[in-house]
Amino acid sequence: MSSGIKIKAPATISNLACGFDVLGAAIHLTADEIVGHLVDKPGVHIKQIYGVKKALSTDPSKNTAGVAIRSMLRFLRAEKVGIELEIYKKLPIGTGLGSSASSAAAAVMLANELLKRPLSKQELVPFAVLGELSADGALHGDNVIPSLLGGIIFIRDIRSLSYKRVYHPPGLYISIVFPEVSVLTREARAILKPEVPMKKVIRQTGNLGGLILGLQNGDFDMISHSLQDVMIEPQRAHLIPCFHEVQETAHLAGALGCSISGSGPTIFAFSNELQKAEEIAQKMQEVYTRNKIDSRIHVGTVNEEGSILC
Amino acid sequence: MSSGIKIKAPATISNLACGFDVLGAAIHLTADEIVGHLVDKPGVHIKQIYGVKKALSTDPSKNTAGVAIRSMLRFLRAEKVGIELEIYKKLPIGTGLGSSASSAAAAVMLANELLKRPLSKQELVPFAVLGELSADGALHGDNVIPSLLGGIIFIRDIRSLSYKRVYHPPGLYISIVFPEVSVLTREARAILKPEVPMKKVIRQTGNLGGLILGLQNGDFDMISHSLQDVMIEPQRAHLIPCFHEVQETAHLAGALGCSISGSGPTIFAFSNELQKAEEIAQKMQEVYTRNKIDSRIHVGTVNEEGSILC
Repeated sequence: MSSGIKIKAPATISNLACGFDVLGAAIHLTADEIVGHLVDKPGVHIKQIYGVKKALSTDPSKNTAGVAIRSMLRFLRAEKVGIELEIYKKLPIGTGLGSSASSAAAAVMLANELLKRPLSKQELVPFAVLGELSADGALHGDNVIPSLLGGIIFIRDIRSLSYKRVYHPPGLYISIVFPEVSVLTREARAILKPEVPMKKVIRQTGNLGGLILGLQNGDFDMISHSLQDVMIEPQRAHLIPCFHEVQETAHLAGALGCSISGSGPTIFAFSNELQKAEEIAQKMQEVYTRNKIDSRIHVGTVNEEGSILC
Repeated sequence: MSSGIKIKAPATISNLACGFDVLGAAIHLTADEIVGHLVDKPGVHIKQIYGVKKALSTDPSKNTAGVAIRSMLRFLRAEKVGIELEIYKKLPIGTGLGSSASSAAAAVMLANELLKRPLSKQELVPFAVLGELSADGALHGDNVIPSLLGGIIFIRDIRSLSYKRVYHPPGLYISIVFPEVSVLTREARAILKPEVPMKKVIRQTGNLGGLILGLQNGDFDMISHSLQDVMIEPQRAHLIPCFHEVQETAHLAGALGCSISGSGPTIFAFSNELQKAEEIAQKMQEVYTRNKIDSRIHVGTVNEEGSILC
């Protein structure tokens, strides 16, 4: 039996208001830690999953980590390799912070380390994406790619694995609040109307392009004007307790913008000063405290490293 | 009577495949020349419009140039100023190259010069946009802003005049062909379905973001993958004779991408070499020649200056 290796993978904010299924950012909040080692028995063996109230399957074919590593071992023609792992979920399930994607990201990093890095981090992307796909049945990649690679990632087309890092100005801070209620991605997707009015498409594409240009050019005004979701947020806001009150609170506290992280219930806000970011997080949490809903907050910058060896 | 001043305004390609109502580029093809001078009689007087088969109204309230200058004179509280102008249309009406927007762009430049530049070029944008609005009743700006300022312009939100120049790599060439048939913008807009399937919205936003990142980063591969219109082109292609044959010809000749300019019938292609761009234009024209349809072609780079004093 080889010595163990530990990988941690960050949580991610997908959509970023105007980038439904095309934009995601890694943050400095660990979503998953995976510890693993090589074993003699071929295949992937998930020994235990810690940190979740509701039991997650340890069947590798039903777990994003298991699916991701299996596809990678097949690609490497290393089906005879045996990997045993333990997954430590650091966030509750269903927060909208890409928790299941983080398992896939950590898992491919782990397997690559155990196999002495046959692949580069970029080359791990396809297997991590396959892992994420097994979680909610929708192929997007806007959680798993930033969780693996770090940064703000724009997905042009996930089927052809066409994506790019979007550079952003220093001084961009993220505040998040997650109320302790669960929103399942599958359900949050199911309520979305299959068609979008053209006028909204034009506004959304305007904001998406504006956000990318604002981030790349370091133009905080443009970032602020662009951080609006006219397409998805109006359909999902009712799934999240006190959403509009939290959003308004963030804006009043100086946020550049505020919207739903992924399918919720986590709410994120961007700002351009650490002190402001901390104040925004506190004030967002106060809304939940007043409404007797437990919540957690986090403040930080974009995580540029993604999944790392501990 | 003052001495005359002459302004020329370039044609523009709007939409650029994936940027419906949000992207436009100026090209090195003059759409309009306007000659004008100050006169004693207050108001805007359009003496004559040259170069069009179908008569355009010389009533300044029904002409983009007239509407644009009038709104500008009101803003400057210069209603007592009199401007007489002659408009030389250098392109046929209804080519999809923003001809009516170019009149508005040239007109505000002209008035500003005649008044000894009370405003900067950027400050002329709102009046030019109001002029363009009078032409087809839809507020977008993706023709008139590049025609005035030059470059590739991304419109985040025209109502708040929020737009940005998108930088692009040197070596980006544009080939266009316009068959001598007319497609009216109003009609081309009227046929568009009011709703877009969510899947297409995701593909279109993916391409739009990819195109912006590709242009800004000088990544021709990304530009090429992104130059696709899954939303509008399928609905308008049938309005343009031989569209699919021309598009395929452009791709076979090495185009990075090829789609409809504005509401058509002009078809544009991007490429990364002048020689290739010339070959693409010739081959696109040959399709029309074979089909006994008269057409014109143009090859050049993005026009960075926009409207200029001659």
